Amino acid sequence: MGNSGQLLKDGHFNMNPASPLDNVRIVLSHTSHPGNIGATARAMKAMGLRNLYLVNPKLFPDKEADARASNARDLLETAHICTSLQAAIGDTCLVAALTTRPRDLSHSTLDARQAASELIRHARHSPVGLLFGRESSGLTTDEISQCQLTVHIPTHADYSSLNLAAAVQIMGYELWMALKNTAAVTLSENQAEPASLREVENFYAHLEKIMIQSGFLDPQQPKKLMRRMRRLFARARLEKEEVNILRGILSAVDNKK
Amino acid sequence: MGNSGQLLKDGHFNMNPASPLDNVRIVLSHTSHPGNIGATARAMKAMGLRNLYLVNPKLFPDKEADARASNARDLLETAHICTSLQAAIGDTCLVAALTTRPRDLSHSTLDARQAASELIRHARHSPVGLLFGRESSGLTTDEISQCQLTVHIPTHADYSSLNLAAAVQIMGYELWMALKNTAAVTLSENQAEPASLREVENFYAHLEKIMIQSGFLDPQQPKKLMRRMRRLFARARLEKEEVNILRGILSAVDNKK
Repeated sequence: MGNSGQLLKDGHFNMNPASPLDNVRIVLSHTSHPGNIGATARAMKAMGLRNLYLVNPKLFPDKEADARASNARDLLETAHICTSLQAAIGDTCLVAALTTRPRDLSHSTLDARQAASELIRHARHSPVGLLFGRESSGLTTDEISQCQLTVHIPTHADYSSLNLAAAVQIMGYELWMALKNTAAVTLSENQAEPASLREVENFYAHLEKIMIQSGFLDPQQPKKLMRRMRRLFARARLEKEEVNILRGILSAVDNKK
Repeated sequence: MGNSGQLLKDGHFNMNPASPLDNVRIVLSHTSHPGNIGATARAMKAMGLRNLYLVNPKLFPDKEADARASNARDLLETAHICTSLQAAIGDTCLVAALTTRPRDLSHSTLDARQAASELIRHARHSPVGLLFGRESSGLTTDEISQCQLTVHIPTHADYSSLNLAAAVQIMGYELWMALKNTAAVTLSENQAEPASLREVENFYAHLEKIMIQSGFLDPQQPKKLMRRMRRLFARARLEKEEVNILRGILSAVDNKK
């Protein structure tokens, strides 16, 4: 995907031929009720979103999904069905995980409005994702650790239970509003190319290997240390070249031994 | 309802004993599908709304409504069932009618965010309402004429069809956000202790040493690589514990050789 720009007849260069929303993926992980997938498609289409990714849905395709999608059935037909989260988000540069309540402080947490603005900013250049978990239990710690930030939708403290499609609806609405509100703003940001999630995952694997080899990390008790490292680098939003340098250091250290 | 104020012991007058949301009614006119009434109740409860008014619902109560309400069934039990629109809104001071597209300009039209802010402003003192029409055809001209303003939720031009409960969800969310934004902002961010600049500098020195020892960094040409690393970690705003972990990795790698 990405945004290659477009040379117009009058010689001006149009940096934004497609909508940034075309760079936004809605990723549903392990959805139980196909009706929610259909309702999600409808919620998305009304807000100009069209890229639906389903990670191991329990039932799909299904006629309940079709029924609830109403006239957004085309999004179901083009939905990507993935057998792993990485297959859905590996080539994106930023993924935000929806959580009902702030977790263990392992990520920077934004509210729906802030997150939408952040996602739209990145979607002008690269694919981004919004990840929603199971209806009953939300996202697992492992799933969240593959994302760079968590998002929460402000709700009443006593009852924070949003239906899956309702949460997608609010996020889609905020993305749409963020796009409208920044449409006039054209910041030339001179950004470096962000690393893809897959590149970052490969770096983590490399780092973990070196940590274990050096005796710093006990593979029997790996979780917390690696999670801390993920949190640090998630905050930094690694660039492609930075990942190359970091992996260069790890390789050099490895060869030296 | 209304808000009569409350005289406190110290003689101050508390103008806001209850939430303004208690003064907001969600009014559904001639709803066909009881599932939508249930989903509406759930959408409302998560946003702190509890006053549901049903004008001539086709089927209610109904087990499909109960099922979709999830844990918001209490709102269905206290719902007011009315045989006319006036019975539902007659004693309010302001009612906003949801329409998919701007109508005949006979009303001032606000978008969802503006309307929410306007409704909350009035709800601090008096009951207000938000009116939603039939799933298929929306509100009639006669119904709209009984309201003071129309609201539209911004959507994609090619597909503006929102599910009824999805529209309620967005409006409830905007009401909640409007209330939050006008309350005093007190974010307590519970942040971890940041590393001191000296600790970070010591980490850089340690990193540089390992990079040189491993042969990755040529000390004759050190500048650019270290500057890249500084830029990365500066962006991350390192915490004290993270610096300790990073230095632990460097030490482990160092000892192994």
